[in-house]
Amino acid sequence: MTQTRSHTVDPRFDLVLERVVDVPRALVWKAWTQPEHLKKWFTPAPWSTIDCEIDLRPGGIFRTVMRSPEGQEFPNLGCYLEVVENERLVWTNVLLPGYRPTDFSTIEPSDCAAIAFTAVITLETLKNGTKYTALAIHGHEADCKRHEEMGFHDGWGKALEQLVDSIRDG
Amino acid sequence: MTQTRSHTVDPRFDLVLERVVDVPRALVWKAWTQPEHLKKWFTPAPWSTIDCEIDLRPGGIFRTVMRSPEGQEFPNLGCYLEVVENERLVWTNVLLPGYRPTDFSTIEPSDCAAIAFTAVITLETLKNGTKYTALAIHGHEADCKRHEEMGFHDGWGKALEQLVDSIRDG
Repeated sequence: MTQTRSHTVDPRFDLVLERVVDVPRALVWKAWTQPEHLKKWFTPAPWSTIDCEIDLRPGGIFRTVMRSPEGQEFPNLGCYLEVVENERLVWTNVLLPGYRPTDFSTIEPSDCAAIAFTAVITLETLKNGTKYTALAIHGHEADCKRHEEMGFHDGWGKALEQLVDSIRDG
Repeated sequence: MTQTRSHTVDPRFDLVLERVVDVPRALVWKAWTQPEHLKKWFTPAPWSTIDCEIDLRPGGIFRTVMRSPEGQEFPNLGCYLEVVENERLVWTNVLLPGYRPTDFSTIEPSDCAAIAFTAVITLETLKNGTKYTALAIHGHEADCKRHEEMGFHDGWGKALEQLVDSIRDG
């Protein structure tokens, strides 16, 4: 197990993506926390993010709506847990805004929103750019495995490339 | 619906206990946040709290073990979400320490720990004492109803009386 600032990473339950990107961390933070910016990069093409709502405080809403190439829409709703500007962003889909527990019985088991997880984005300034760490914490191995099989590493990696491109494009 | 500082109370889903107690709020806060003190009052007699672990920060552990009069032990595990000294304490059993989603499939459905909820304790100083508000936020009506039927109001009310007595006893 690896101890991060406040998270114990368990390889049976957790997924990690670590990259160094050559953009300043303040701009990565903005890309994650401004809805209009987030919509540009959040979902690997040809999928798209067509809506995003952000209330950037513990207990505040984080809602996105993804659209498949076939036009099907997939809403995701959760709340922020920690907001440390330019450093650390934590949210979960296990709690709705105001910390109300999510009723997973209302979500189709086949929907990606049925995977219960907490996400931790950590940003560190390096000499040559920004160290970007995305951690997905699950409650059991089945959710973790399913998240991995749905393409966590490819998907979050490609989204990060889109994020960097969106910063370069201004 | 009633809007509290950051919580929308929905009477179908939420339970509220509001009382005025004639002890200073700093002492109520201590009773809630120091394990040795909490064990004195947390569970209405003849039940008892035989163990308690507190790491008072967002993501930190809040663990208690209750014992029934027959000697059966019931552990409860969760984590804190907000810690505002002397004002507001928020925790949930939907997330384990480090914000790991709880795997409710490992908890006996008949166990009280199977009721998913977030708790918000709010303290306000009044002329004649401290206004004490305990809010339990649930994800669906069934959990709320079950929590109420298990004696939420009587239980949390009696525990609060024990808390006040424990402060008076020094």
